[in-house]
Amino acid sequence: MSTTILENARLVTLAQGNGARTPRRGDEMEHLGVIERGWVSIESGRITGMDEGTPPGGEAGSDEVRIDVEGRVVMPGLVDCHTHACWAGCRFDEFDEKLRGASYLEILAAGGGIMSTVRSVRSASVEELTSNLLHRIEQMTRLGSTTIEVKSGYGLSTEAELKMLEAIRSAKQLIEPIVIPTFLGAHAIDPDNPDFIEQTINETLPAVAQAFPGIACDAYCEDGAWSLDQCRRLFEEAQALGCPIRVHADQFNSLGATRLAIESGAVSVDHLEATTPDDLRALAHSDTMGVLLPASGYHLGEGYASGRAFVDLGGAVAIASNFNPGSAPTPSMPFAIHLAVNRCRLTPSEAITAATWNAACVLGLQDEIGSIEIGKRADLVVLDSTDERALAWEFAMPGPRLIMIAGQIHDLTPLGG
Amino acid sequence: MSTTILENARLVTLAQGNGARTPRRGDEMEHLGVIERGWVSIESGRITGMDEGTPPGGEAGSDEVRIDVEGRVVMPGLVDCHTHACWAGCRFDEFDEKLRGASYLEILAAGGGIMSTVRSVRSASVEELTSNLLHRIEQMTRLGSTTIEVKSGYGLSTEAELKMLEAIRSAKQLIEPIVIPTFLGAHAIDPDNPDFIEQTINETLPAVAQAFPGIACDAYCEDGAWSLDQCRRLFEEAQALGCPIRVHADQFNSLGATRLAIESGAVSVDHLEATTPDDLRALAHSDTMGVLLPASGYHLGEGYASGRAFVDLGGAVAIASNFNPGSAPTPSMPFAIHLAVNRCRLTPSEAITAATWNAACVLGLQDEIGSIEIGKRADLVVLDSTDERALAWEFAMPGPRLIMIAGQIHDLTPLGG
Repeated sequence: MSTTILENARLVTLAQGNGARTPRRGDEMEHLGVIERGWVSIESGRITGMDEGTPPGGEAGSDEVRIDVEGRVVMPGLVDCHTHACWAGCRFDEFDEKLRGASYLEILAAGGGIMSTVRSVRSASVEELTSNLLHRIEQMTRLGSTTIEVKSGYGLSTEAELKMLEAIRSAKQLIEPIVIPTFLGAHAIDPDNPDFIEQTINETLPAVAQAFPGIACDAYCEDGAWSLDQCRRLFEEAQALGCPIRVHADQFNSLGATRLAIESGAVSVDHLEATTPDDLRALAHSDTMGVLLPASGYHLGEGYASGRAFVDLGGAVAIASNFNPGSAPTPSMPFAIHLAVNRCRLTPSEAITAATWNAACVLGLQDEIGSIEIGKRADLVVLDSTDERALAWEFAMPGPRLIMIAGQIHDLTPLGG
Repeated sequence: MSTTILENARLVTLAQGNGARTPRRGDEMEHLGVIERGWVSIESGRITGMDEGTPPGGEAGSDEVRIDVEGRVVMPGLVDCHTHACWAGCRFDEFDEKLRGASYLEILAAGGGIMSTVRSVRSASVEELTSNLLHRIEQMTRLGSTTIEVKSGYGLSTEAELKMLEAIRSAKQLIEPIVIPTFLGAHAIDPDNPDFIEQTINETLPAVAQAFPGIACDAYCEDGAWSLDQCRRLFEEAQALGCPIRVHADQFNSLGATRLAIESGAVSVDHLEATTPDDLRALAHSDTMGVLLPASGYHLGEGYASGRAFVDLGGAVAIASNFNPGSAPTPSMPFAIHLAVNRCRLTPSEAITAATWNAACVLGLQDEIGSIEIGKRADLVVLDSTDERALAWEFAMPGPRLIMIAGQIHDLTPLGG
């Protein structure tokens, strides 16, 4: 049996002494479970051993590969729990227009905005969507993400939503990183379909739940998108079908979706830029997690969620890239971590917890990934630094030095440095 | 003779039909010299041919490697004309303190700020500085930079400035990207040396000019750093020694250094965040170039230079990363391009001109690099996109797909995607 050992590592394990398997909240997020100089061994894609100091000598004749990481940080692969990475088309022309001073309404009138992506996705084949998504997963992985959630939501019809989810499933089967689909039929309102809301709730959702049992159901609750009442009806139906609930809430306006999510026992509320202090407190005291998506606040210049306040209130927070073609054209989890620290005022340790263990909890995968523990899948990154704070205090970096996915090593330094 | 051909490429040549070798200014910056579907051939590290369409068939028995780039953008390697990438030590503790609310003065009192880096550099060996710099050049190159300027300026004594420049020269000899040193003895004021200004002008500068003939002389003109009169004296001495002049001006306060630079025939004025409209106009109408360093405005949250106004006034602009451990901890030229567009309002084409041809002009290297032309050094990047606007409209990306430095190919997609 072939064994790989990463030695001479600063192990940022994210393991918790008390063995708790729940999201870390408030103060708990500061504790990274660091082993300052240690090693981790991997066999058949799993973590089989770890400790401080030097690893025990290999048995004679053992097929063992040792990699000296020279004091660099070894930590769990990043978990991107909120992306819209499955799309077709390109919105650069729209960005050019915006730069020239075109208003939001002018861009919409010219065919821009989310419906432009919907049109491109509807006319794309499953194969094209799969190929595009594989390319983007590769970009995300080069930057350190080893588990990636991908939402539908650019189809907005039963057929096109199922096509997107089929492309996400195909990508999942073709690539090593873990890929988790989410159903976001409630992303925008199709202006050309007067029955859109009813159809999404009564036809698309049941069809998706049948084809993808247990898939999470997400909604975008915002002025001009799904209303609070529409979301409530969707969530009731989703729960009846056994689908966990997530919601995009309070990106620009606070419509009450955070309260609805708490009452519905939702897994997460994502965005939180415009959440009221009262709602933030209620969320922090609930079992529903908050997901920060600071890349869109950065791109749109619209401000950031109060991450610091949420953690101080005892909330459980995750961070995600929100990778999408309109408001967050970036595949970078490290940049999301950097913004969560520099703009949402989390500490570097809190942000790292939010991007690993807590993000794994959002996806229900904390027994498989999100920390370095014996028995877990060997999804690891070796940072190009001996200090994990580099993820927070440097930005737009080229990504980790090595990435290990299910025990397979990918050396990301072809310049040989 | 072995020939490499990149074919099926969108060639963004930056070549100018009229053959002018001067910086592009105003409207001229919009023209990228695009060949929509073409090829470029490379032999012995040089560009030997290029045209639209498909390349002529290789002669029988010729040792020719053809790479189909599948419509992706092939463009000149990025030229980073302003970095402080040679340093020792780490300022993450200081960033942690700032996050906890420490003021600038408290951080200074605790030993932070630029003088903390100066102390680390003074106690580092040439070998340590060289090794650190090589690591950072590798990071910059992974993101697409193939020519990199590096300033001294953390030594602030004759001995320590020469040590830094020695490290930069060593790195230059050990690595394929072009490395250009600049003397920045006038970076800060050593508070412990009452003769610091006189010594820098009368002792350090002449010693540096002797050891590095023709090296550019740079100064940081700002409240608390070098005054306008001190810069004037330094520049007079530098010119007498045959050193071209550059200046950091108007980062926080407008002290008149932009006017001084124009009068002195300086190569460039870098920063420009606080430049007055009158000075901006004077600069645009002069032969001195303006260099945007938007990563520090981003990192400090202090605002950006009026790049749009400067180009509209007919100015010649370059963009650089400003990579340094305090105000711009990023090696990324693509991120600087992105900020120059999204925050300084340049168009994507203007920003690409600013990061290639014009940046080469700042370093006096436009006959060697900065465009795809026959006879030039084969420093090329193959973007991970068929649209060069990806450099502007996406951000924190993992870097180009392929990098060619002096004809040598580095494949940056070890994930095999």
